[in-house]
Order: sequence, then C-alpha cells, then structure tokens
Amino acid sequence: MAAPASASSSAVTDPGFPAILCTVDVVLLTLKGGVLHAVLLRRADGPHAGGWALPGGFIHAQEDATAWDAAARVLREKTGIASPYLEQLATYSGARRDPRGWSVSIVYCALVPAELLPEDSERLQVAPVGALPALAFDHADMVALAVSRVRSKSQYSSLPVYFCGERMTLPQLQAVYEAVLGEPVNKVSFRRKIDELGMLEPVDGLMESGAPHRPAQVYRLREAFRRSLSVVPRGLNS
Amino acid sequence: MAAPASASSSAVTDPGFPAILCTVDVVLLTLKGGVLHAVLLRRADGPHAGGWALPGGFIHAQEDATAWDAAARVLREKTGIASPYLEQLATYSGARRDPRGWSVSIVYCALVPAELLPEDSERLQVAPVGALPALAFDHADMVALAVSRVRSKSQYSSLPVYFCGERMTLPQLQAVYEAVLGEPVNKVSFRRKIDELGMLEPVDGLMESGAPHRPAQVYRLREAFRRSLSVVPRGLNS
Repeated sequence: MAAPASASSSAVTDPGFPAILCTVDVVLLTLKGGVLHAVLLRRADGPHAGGWALPGGFIHAQEDATAWDAAARVLREKTGIASPYLEQLATYSGARRDPRGWSVSIVYCALVPAELLPEDSERLQVAPVGALPALAFDHADMVALAVSRVRSKSQYSSLPVYFCGERMTLPQLQAVYEAVLGEPVNKVSFRRKIDELGMLEPVDGLMESGAPHRPAQVYRLREAFRRSLSVVPRGLNS
Repeated sequence: MAAPASASSSAVTDPGFPAILCTVDVVLLTLKGGVLHAVLLRRADGPHAGGWALPGGFIHAQEDATAWDAAARVLREKTGIASPYLEQLATYSGARRDPRGWSVSIVYCALVPAELLPEDSERLQVAPVGALPALAFDHADMVALAVSRVRSKSQYSSLPVYFCGERMTLPQLQAVYEAVLGEPVNKVSFRRKIDELGMLEPVDGLMESGAPHRPAQVYRLREAFRRSLSVVPRGLNS
C-alpha cells in the first residue's frame, strides 16, 4: 500500500480523487427442505428502492474495527442474526456497479440453521438459490459465487455443519452434506471423513428419541470449531 | 449494498463517516532456483518510509474501471510488468492497519516467469518467500496467504504454468510443479493431469535442443489459458 510518489505522509487521499464508497454485503445461506436458500431484504431507499438485495451497508469507520465487524453488525441490525460463521468471499468493485459512484463491496458468506431465521415478510424473504427474484446491483453474481464456494469447500471441510442446529445425529449431518453437494455421499467414507475432521463430540448418554428406526447418538460441534473450519487434505469423494 | 435507512439516494456517504482509504496491493510471485520469491519495493514515503513493501497504491477512481485494473496499473507503473495472470486473493481492512486512517486493501496475486523481472536494485528486490525482510503494514500476512493459496491451487489447476516462459517441455513443467508444491510428483500421474487440464499444445516440430538427454517436445500454453486457469476436480496426488 505505497503512497503515490508525490504524496506527503499526511495526505490521506490524493486530492484529485473522489471518495470511494465502501460497503459490505452478506450472502446469508441456509438449508430448507434440502435446498440451499439465501436471505434477501427489500431495499427501502434508492438505488433500486423496493427491489430485493443482500443484507449490506456502508462500513462505519468510527464503529467497525474491520470489514468483518461491519458485516457482523449489518447482519445483526438487519436480520437479527448474531455471531454466525462468517467468511470473506471476494470483493466486488468498480465505477459502474453503483450509480452513486465508484464503489467497493467486501462480500461475506454466512451459514445458519433455518430455525434461526425470521419468518418471510414484506421486507425479508428466504429464497431458493436456484429461483431467486431479480436482485439489485451485482448481488446475483455474489450469491452464485457463494453457492459455488460452499459446494466446493464442503468436499473437504466441516462447513455444512453450520447449517445444523447445536445438536445433530450423523444421519442428519450426512443428509445436510448430500443436500449441499447435490449428490449422494457414501456412508462409510462420510463417517471416516467426519472422524478425520474431528469437529464433533458425542453428547453423553443422549440418543435421538422418537425416531422410527434405531436411535442414533446425538453429537454437538466442539467448542474449537464454532467459528473456524476443520479441513482435511482430500475430498469426500476421493 | 443497501443504503442506511436514513440516507437519501443522493447521499453518497453518510456525512458522519470519515472517508476510507482504498488501495490495492499485489503479491508478485516468481520461481528462482526452484524457490518461490516475492517482489518487494522500497517505500519512498511514509508511513514506513525506506521500508520494504508489496507493490501497491491508491485506487484512482477516475482512471481505474475496477480494482483489478488498479492492480494491473500499479504493477505496470511500479515494476514494468504488463498483463500477467492476476487474481484477487482477499481484502484486508480496518482502523489500525495504516496510521493514515481506516483503510481497505484489495490484494491480488500475480505469477510471472523470473526472466520478466527487473534486476535487484536499491528500490526493488526479489526475495525468497521463506526469508523475507521485515515488511510494512500487514504485507507479510499477504505474502503468506498468497503462497498458501498458490500451493493449494496448484494441486488441481494449471496455475504453475504462469511461472514458465512462453514455451516449455514437460520435464521442465514438472520441475516447476514440484518446486511450487514442495514435494516430488509422480511422472505418470503428472502427465495424465496435464493432459486432462488441456492447457498445453505442442509447438509443431520443435524439440528441446542442447540437452544432454533425449530431446523433449516443446509445448506452449493454449491461447484460452493465457489469462484463465484450467482446473480439474481432483488433485495431483489423489
């Protein structure tokens, strides 16, 4: 981040350059009925007033320590979701993506269990990623990138676990992986991978109840993996 | 990128928020003597005047169409490198990373053959990534992230080909992959992957000359892959 040769150390921006709009957007994904869904909000103001968009907003330099904090704040304020798994995806930028001026959007992806989301309303909808309404700005590209990243990362990491609630059985988690990957997963190799990932611990003495089949052990995510992924070198299907 | 509820469509930034510094930094990597190296420039001005840093600079909103264009311009102006393979890596941001104010740096990674780089001088050095001098800002983290990304991506893509010149033999390319991955690669599976990647074409009738062993066919990168990667679903070692 070198200053231009002509800038003195006190010049914070080149005087000739207009300010750049700095925002964050969050692709908030969940799994409903075995299908990936994204959370959309209706824009109250222009540009694209009345249109659907991702939860997002300006970085507040006086309040947010980093862009990650801005994304967490925006999610909390606009959807009520606190402390989800939140990972930086990519940054979109340019002169033409926002009619208000040259803009940067640092995009994050968050994964949450469907039960944590508010009900659909006039201002919020949870839409299947394969059948989204028209989205403002370049937000449709952001959703597509998030979906592709989540799918490829799920091959070799604990990522899908963030779609589950606090407790799950292995058959439930396998169904979540299959829904995310869009293909069946071999049970034996799935269990070996989960073991290798080491992210789950059994909840002592707790078995699934009310199930029509043999009750399954209930697991929970280990403390260390609440906010950070476990990754294995080789994919689920290799 | 929703505007705050109180903003009118003509308010480009919230009046209460100070401007954010928007910059790009480029981790420019090359392979020298079988070792990954990064290009460093000496900073002429503060902060960190006289220190080593990555090639970088402010986004020029009037001149750069996107942050990618800003990164390409900065590289051209500061190192003379034009049109390399240039990929967005991550964005670093926050209140404390630059003493001049809240800043965003969109980081790119570029790969070039060593012969394209200028000679080391008072203001530029090509340093092995394992033995870098102290770097300004959070630039050491950026180099570490780039190296880790290049290593993992090289397992299943044509990325290392950008370290080669325009023409190469398969034994030369295999040596480049081995240097990047830091481990030997099986010749048979390497050739199968290269075939699967489909990024090379033989240069008609051209065989390596002056080699002490049996001359090898000379290949070049197909036009379609000069700027975009070829990716296979499974890694080199799987």
